Amino acid sequence: MDLETLRHSTSHILAAAVQELYPGAKLGIGPAIEDGFYYDFDIPNTTLTLEDLPKIEEKMREIIKKDEPFERQELSKEEALKLFEKRKEKYKVELIKGIPEEKVSIYKTGKFTDLCRGPHIKSTGQAGAFKLLTVAGAYWKGVEQNPMLTRIYGTAFEKEEELKTHITKLEEALKRDHRKLGRELDLFNIYHEAAGPGLVYYHPRGARLRLLIEDFLRREHIKRGYQFVITPHIARGNLWKTSGHSGYYRENMYFMEIDKQEYVLKPMNCPGHILIYQSKLHSYRDLPVRFFELGTVYRYERSGVLHGLLRVRGFTQDDAHIFCTPESLEVEIIKVIDFAFDMLKTFGFEWEVDLSTRPEKYAGTEENWKHATQALISALKQKGIEYKIDEGAGVFYGPKIDVKMKDALGRPWQGPTIQVDFNLPERFDLNYIAEDGSKKRPVMIHRVVLGSMERFLGALIEHYGGAFPLWISPVQVMLLPIADRHAAYANQVADQLLSQDIRVEVDNRREKINLKIREAQLQKIPYMLIVGDKEQQQNTVAVRSRSGGDLGVSDLKNFIEKLKKECYNITG
Amino acid sequence: MDLETLRHSTSHILAAAVQELYPGAKLGIGPAIEDGFYYDFDIPNTTLTLEDLPKIEEKMREIIKKDEPFERQELSKEEALKLFEKRKEKYKVELIKGIPEEKVSIYKTGKFTDLCRGPHIKSTGQAGAFKLLTVAGAYWKGVEQNPMLTRIYGTAFEKEEELKTHITKLEEALKRDHRKLGRELDLFNIYHEAAGPGLVYYHPRGARLRLLIEDFLRREHIKRGYQFVITPHIARGNLWKTSGHSGYYRENMYFMEIDKQEYVLKPMNCPGHILIYQSKLHSYRDLPVRFFELGTVYRYERSGVLHGLLRVRGFTQDDAHIFCTPESLEVEIIKVIDFAFDMLKTFGFEWEVDLSTRPEKYAGTEENWKHATQALISALKQKGIEYKIDEGAGVFYGPKIDVKMKDALGRPWQGPTIQVDFNLPERFDLNYIAEDGSKKRPVMIHRVVLGSMERFLGALIEHYGGAFPLWISPVQVMLLPIADRHAAYANQVADQLLSQDIRVEVDNRREKINLKIREAQLQKIPYMLIVGDKEQQQNTVAVRSRSGGDLGVSDLKNFIEKLKKECYNITG
Repeated sequence: MDLETLRHSTSHILAAAVQELYPGAKLGIGPAIEDGFYYDFDIPNTTLTLEDLPKIEEKMREIIKKDEPFERQELSKEEALKLFEKRKEKYKVELIKGIPEEKVSIYKTGKFTDLCRGPHIKSTGQAGAFKLLTVAGAYWKGVEQNPMLTRIYGTAFEKEEELKTHITKLEEALKRDHRKLGRELDLFNIYHEAAGPGLVYYHPRGARLRLLIEDFLRREHIKRGYQFVITPHIARGNLWKTSGHSGYYRENMYFMEIDKQEYVLKPMNCPGHILIYQSKLHSYRDLPVRFFELGTVYRYERSGVLHGLLRVRGFTQDDAHIFCTPESLEVEIIKVIDFAFDMLKTFGFEWEVDLSTRPEKYAGTEENWKHATQALISALKQKGIEYKIDEGAGVFYGPKIDVKMKDALGRPWQGPTIQVDFNLPERFDLNYIAEDGSKKRPVMIHRVVLGSMERFLGALIEHYGGAFPLWISPVQVMLLPIADRHAAYANQVADQLLSQDIRVEVDNRREKINLKIREAQLQKIPYMLIVGDKEQQQNTVAVRSRSGGDLGVSDLKNFIEKLKKECYNITG
Repeated sequence: MDLETLRHSTSHILAAAVQELYPGAKLGIGPAIEDGFYYDFDIPNTTLTLEDLPKIEEKMREIIKKDEPFERQELSKEEALKLFEKRKEKYKVELIKGIPEEKVSIYKTGKFTDLCRGPHIKSTGQAGAFKLLTVAGAYWKGVEQNPMLTRIYGTAFEKEEELKTHITKLEEALKRDHRKLGRELDLFNIYHEAAGPGLVYYHPRGARLRLLIEDFLRREHIKRGYQFVITPHIARGNLWKTSGHSGYYRENMYFMEIDKQEYVLKPMNCPGHILIYQSKLHSYRDLPVRFFELGTVYRYERSGVLHGLLRVRGFTQDDAHIFCTPESLEVEIIKVIDFAFDMLKTFGFEWEVDLSTRPEKYAGTEENWKHATQALISALKQKGIEYKIDEGAGVFYGPKIDVKMKDALGRPWQGPTIQVDFNLPERFDLNYIAEDGSKKRPVMIHRVVLGSMERFLGALIEHYGGAFPLWISPVQVMLLPIADRHAAYANQVADQLLSQDIRVEVDNRREKINLKIREAQLQKIPYMLIVGDKEQQQNTVAVRSRSGGDLGVSDLKNFIEKLKKECYNITG
């Protein structure tokens, strides 16, 4: 059986159950979605919570037991309108009015009737294993001015075992939710009310994590011949007219006025990097020029789609623009691919690669597109990287490689992208002096190797479940004195570790040692050093690791060496 | 004789000379200023340039030779209006209309007449040594909607020798002008037309310099118990209402609208840090909390006052907010003072310290002010730091210490500030749990130890005249192969240096070695390594330093050790 049909049918059963339990409930829509289904309801004077779901599931099981047939019926729009007006289904009425066709279909199961294209299972008895998962608010049609409906999410599979596997995976994902861990590990916060949605505030441990990764990134960029630049967050509107962003990207941009002129809060770093490229003459001998910036950009997203660190209104890209000759395009792409995959390997991600080719509307010549697409393909082949072609999915200004990072649960996250651009060099009239003395047009590569710091950190938190590898752990070692009288020794050990650039904290609270250990464990601190009378006398530490438990007593020098080795294995 | 009187009188002589040479020239104003004087003119159909100044000086000398007396005369406003209307001095007429008094005074010398309060020298013959320095455009009354006048700057001293010393200092300052060096060393640029005035773009060498200093700063902050945070550049208008900035700082803030709500491009980092402080309960045991951010802020300044890196519209503060108990205020201030002066010493600045006390209008209790002012004074005394009291010059929310950094030419630059604040803890209702279990209000210290990265880099460029010390030189070593056949060896040496984290570039151009050396010298690169046949055969390098010239041949290992030692002396 088709899983989508099964799930969509289960959403009908859900709606039937809700209307039986809450007679005034009006229907919104109830589609199958990736991994399940949902149904939206307008239930007067009732706020559903998670506690109501078992009761609804019970009612659904009753309906399934009755094995009521899904009956399809075709009506004229007029008949359908009459039918749903009579049933006081105002949302369905609105939907019917928006349907261009003359005829519509409805499906009935028992007393339940829904406007629906189908197809469905034959009867409710054919429903498989299902579970209701959660309740959320959702604006009718996703528009914030519309009424807020109650959305019930569920999922369904043919077999009970498939459902169980899926639920286990969901529970694991829930435990790793970066918003939950972000709170628990005190990494970041979004102050929706006080400061605005989609804007991330990094708390000390989150900021440390981010800066550690940024420092690492900077070193890697130096190694690979990139030059750093820093550009302001606002620029005259004119710049964005030249770049073309004001035209095709306007609704995602933030505008302000200064001295009666339009200014833009930058949504992209490219025009700024182009200004710097243009500030001097370039010869083919200087190329490629590779400008790198950890550039914070701001883009408008509807508040309804904002999601933790993954969908935000302000984010920092590990952004570079490479200006190169057409002849060196392929070599440069290969270098970027190497760089990107080195990064993914460093953080333990698997990957999937998409190559997006020329769309129907495009800038530049066909020949340029062919050359650039060929360069991308040839680079992927040379590196032996498997890829899927996404025909016609390139941006209008050039083809691109998109890399999805697959985390420990096999879930894909948007990662590196490599984008060839003929358009901006044209719009800004970029040049270099070729070997024959003629002026030529460079090609631009836009690339990110992690993506945005926000999205990458979101992925990283879920990938590691908050238990970051030692080299990027915001706190690497927690000193746990057993009693107050061991605090001085603990501080002394901490100072020695600090002087070796080890990130250490001391838990000096007057709490039982077991509580301190439990909390450090919950904070996913890689190493806990417990110090009591014995350790103090013998000038040692009792080592625990978050994964391996008690590792026994060690002298400090050996412990530091072990730590350095563990870090070096990854960053060295 | 009073220098101000002398200079102001010389500005009259300048105006008399200009009106003799350019009969239609209308007078603006002509005050004495710090280090000299200027006079503004509206000269129809004439654009003065530097080349015109000698001719004007010549005419001034004629007037001085005539020894014409400065004659004072008192007139009623009506008489004065008639007089200047007849002389078609429309700017003077405007000025007279704005004078509240009934009587005004004028000064005459020969045919020249000026509206002027005086006093003046007795006669033009008493004028001392003078020089006209430059010509610039200046809006009438500094308002951009008004006509652009021609401003001639000059200076005057009693004795020729004093003038010479001053001119020499000016020439030295001119050579060190950070805008000039910024261009010559390709450190940064401001793309007024394309991207907007007051917004700094860091080119690769400038960005490297800034990041080196930022990295150093971060390490110093870690050592001193600061925690990093990162906050967004925009926040809801509400946040700035709570902080009070929307009230008293509105005209310097940039606003935009998102989802029909007012948002602000942050002019300060404090409210963001406060949100993070508020996100959890604090006990006296956790305090002080010290949040540090390299926070980029944007503040409106009129385009007329913008100046290179010193007066900009966007800048990055090395900003920290310390939340502490009133009892630990003094200790925290001492730590900040230590920190700030350590930084100034590191970069070789001298200093002057101002303590600004309670202004007439102030927030908080008198007792709090006394406590905080006492804490600042006591801290300065304990550190044996001399200071000047600037009575009543504190901000309304607390007293502060301002440090001026004095550069190699003895010029002062705005540097560290330490500011005690009772106001924001009150407005945001900040708390901590005291030892007795009661809720108490923490004190906040706002502090920067370098100031803004932009202003500090401006000062640093002029202080070192662009010859940065080795440890922050964007390029530490330039490899200069004598001929093409030495390029491979040069690259190999460069790679070895790079692997030791030394910032190195290779000048592989087909140019004469002398030209390469001259250019590296102009770029103020600390070390040049010249490699030719001999060096290649013997596996050595010929070392030149920008200050010491030829240092002879060295093997690479010794050279690297020398470099590391030179860096370590400062940063270790």
